[in-house]
Amino acid sequence: MVTTLDTGPTLQIVLELAGTFVFGLNGALTAMEAENLDIVGVVVLAVITALGGGIIRDVLIGSLPPAAFLDWRYLVVGTGAGFVAFWARHLWMRFQRFITVLDAAGLALFCVTGTAAAFAAHLGLFQSVVLGTITGVGGGTVRDVFIKKVPTVLSSDLYAVPAACGAVITALSLNYHFYNGAMAIVAASVCFLIRMAGVRYNLNLPVSHPHPQDPKDNKGEP
Amino acid sequence: MVTTLDTGPTLQIVLELAGTFVFGLNGALTAMEAENLDIVGVVVLAVITALGGGIIRDVLIGSLPPAAFLDWRYLVVGTGAGFVAFWARHLWMRFQRFITVLDAAGLALFCVTGTAAAFAAHLGLFQSVVLGTITGVGGGTVRDVFIKKVPTVLSSDLYAVPAACGAVITALSLNYHFYNGAMAIVAASVCFLIRMAGVRYNLNLPVSHPHPQDPKDNKGEP
Amino acid sequence: MVTTLDTGPTLQIVLELAGTFVFGLNGALTAMEAENLDIVGVVVLAVITALGGGIIRDVLIGSLPPAAFLDWRYLVVGTGAGFVAFWARHLWMRFQRFITVLDAAGLALFCVTGTAAAFAAHLGLFQSVVLGTITGVGGGTVRDVFIKKVPTVLSSDLYAVPAACGAVITALSLNYHFYNGAMAIVAASVCFLIRMAGVRYNLNLPVSHPHPQDPKDNKGEP
Repeated sequence: MVTTLDTGPTLQIVLELAGTFVFGLNGALTAMEAENLDIVGVVVLAVITALGGGIIRDVLIGSLPPAAFLDWRYLVVGTGAGFVAFWARHLWMRFQRFITVLDAAGLALFCVTGTAAAFAAHLGLFQSVVLGTITGVGGGTVRDVFIKKVPTVLSSDLYAVPAACGAVITALSLNYHFYNGAMAIVAASVCFLIRMAGVRYNLNLPVSHPHPQDPKDNKGEP
Repeated sequence: MVTTLDTGPTLQIVLELAGTFVFGLNGALTAMEAENLDIVGVVVLAVITALGGGIIRDVLIGSLPPAAFLDWRYLVVGTGAGFVAFWARHLWMRFQRFITVLDAAGLALFCVTGTAAAFAAHLGLFQSVVLGTITGVGGGTVRDVFIKKVPTVLSSDLYAVPAACGAVITALSLNYHFYNGAMAIVAASVCFLIRMAGVRYNLNLPVSHPHPQDPKDNKGEP
Repeated sequence: MVTTLDTGPTLQIVLELAGTFVFGLNGALTAMEAENLDIVGVVVLAVITALGGGIIRDVLIGSLPPAAFLDWRYLVVGTGAGFVAFWARHLWMRFQRFITVLDAAGLALFCVTGTAAAFAAHLGLFQSVVLGTITGVGGGTVRDVFIKKVPTVLSSDLYAVPAACGAVITALSLNYHFYNGAMAIVAASVCFLIRMAGVRYNLNLPVSHPHPQDPKDNKGEP
């Protein structure tokens, strides 16, 4: 959401607003699948998914009000995504795969811009990676808490890992002064490709219970 | 919680502390209905319901520490509401309807003062409306997350809509320089009346699943 | 996490990093018991449990970026605790009682340092107590929300009460100018002993439903 890609302000703002729209759309559709929400709920969750990660990052780096509140277009685009998702729900369901691709692109964009924003606020290398990853995955995580899902990022799915990879490349190139537009595209591409590979081959990280066939067994542990 | 009504500081502080008390009381009673809580839990949820919305707003506009922490009376009144709710629970249950009316009055008050506080912090028109609405509904939403309810504001009930209406009137009158005590009362009254109409006639917004008789059917969608 | 104990910077930083590690370890083990998480989830919840309370406090007192982001060691130690918990889960399960003791020590440490940090930021007596308690219990509460548990602090267990007692002693001694290293140890010891007494004798606070044998009965209340 805050901008530091070396691609000129106009292209960048267009990319960010597009990413905000896709995040909001995907967030609203995910929320509607899980819960029976009214239109206010759908719009609120679209805005939270789209802007939540960047808002958390801006709160933590002390850049207040958050970028998402300084420029009214972010709130309008997030709100609009929620309305569009609500009214054309069955249409979007047919394009689920296409939306997953766009969402991965949004993740790639936000992990790079989020890391750059944290680094620009004089956070260290490791902290910038953490904040860049939060920028990418934070909004969806807050949405999942609201609809009573254990956040996807905690339980399955390669979602935080690609964001962290993109953030690491961004932070390293910033720290060692070889960050430029091309590096930003490399970092975003790595994030995007890992995410899509995860979706395509259904990759998952090792889980804490080695025998998932009886997950209830562990509940009784001391 | 932050004060900008043109009604003199004494009346305003009394109104705000009264609103804090009613929000805390209603929040604690709602929480006790949903979960088996100990007294610490009831008091914590009373404070969160009463002060949470204003705290979120103050964090987002960068007015830190939040107003609720600068004046100790807010925390004391919120805490007191939790104790009163806990010890006299069965008494309050009889006055449920009366508390609903008071809660609507608190909502009306906080959406107006919250919008004015955001506008005073140089947020734009639309953002002030969002922050004013958050001031009204944020505390109850956080409480619902804590007690594992899908927040009411997302799934049913006219709660966010009246707050947003009051916030819109407040923000417009501030932006076009005709805000004064009378306009504040108009904005609060509109919020209050819409909320009470929603309660009285059980109004709900359109929901995302048009056939609520089989809400489970949609869970299996792609 | 922010340091104000009068025990010399080296000892203090060692204590705080040790507390962070134990909080992270206990947080990760608790999370793994409740949910089937992947390694990213376990590490994220370890970091949230270890650092969440201090981060919430720093956001509320406006000390941004939070102390946990200014010094990279906190994030590294929290992350490390998550990995250690994940890979050596069955080993740690045998030392559950030992970890409970260490966790109580961490709680004692953080409620004292958290209160002192809030007081140093010119918050009042009561507000410093609240923020000190949040420093101790906030991280575990956020973790519980993420894994869909009603936070322990709300429903059972003497956890917030010992933290609040330690915070009261710290805040009073700061306010009346007799705070020193010895008082810090007294405050931490009171917190630790009440917490351990609660664990040992299974103490609980009064709950809102006097007849817990049929907790469902109350769900239907108006």
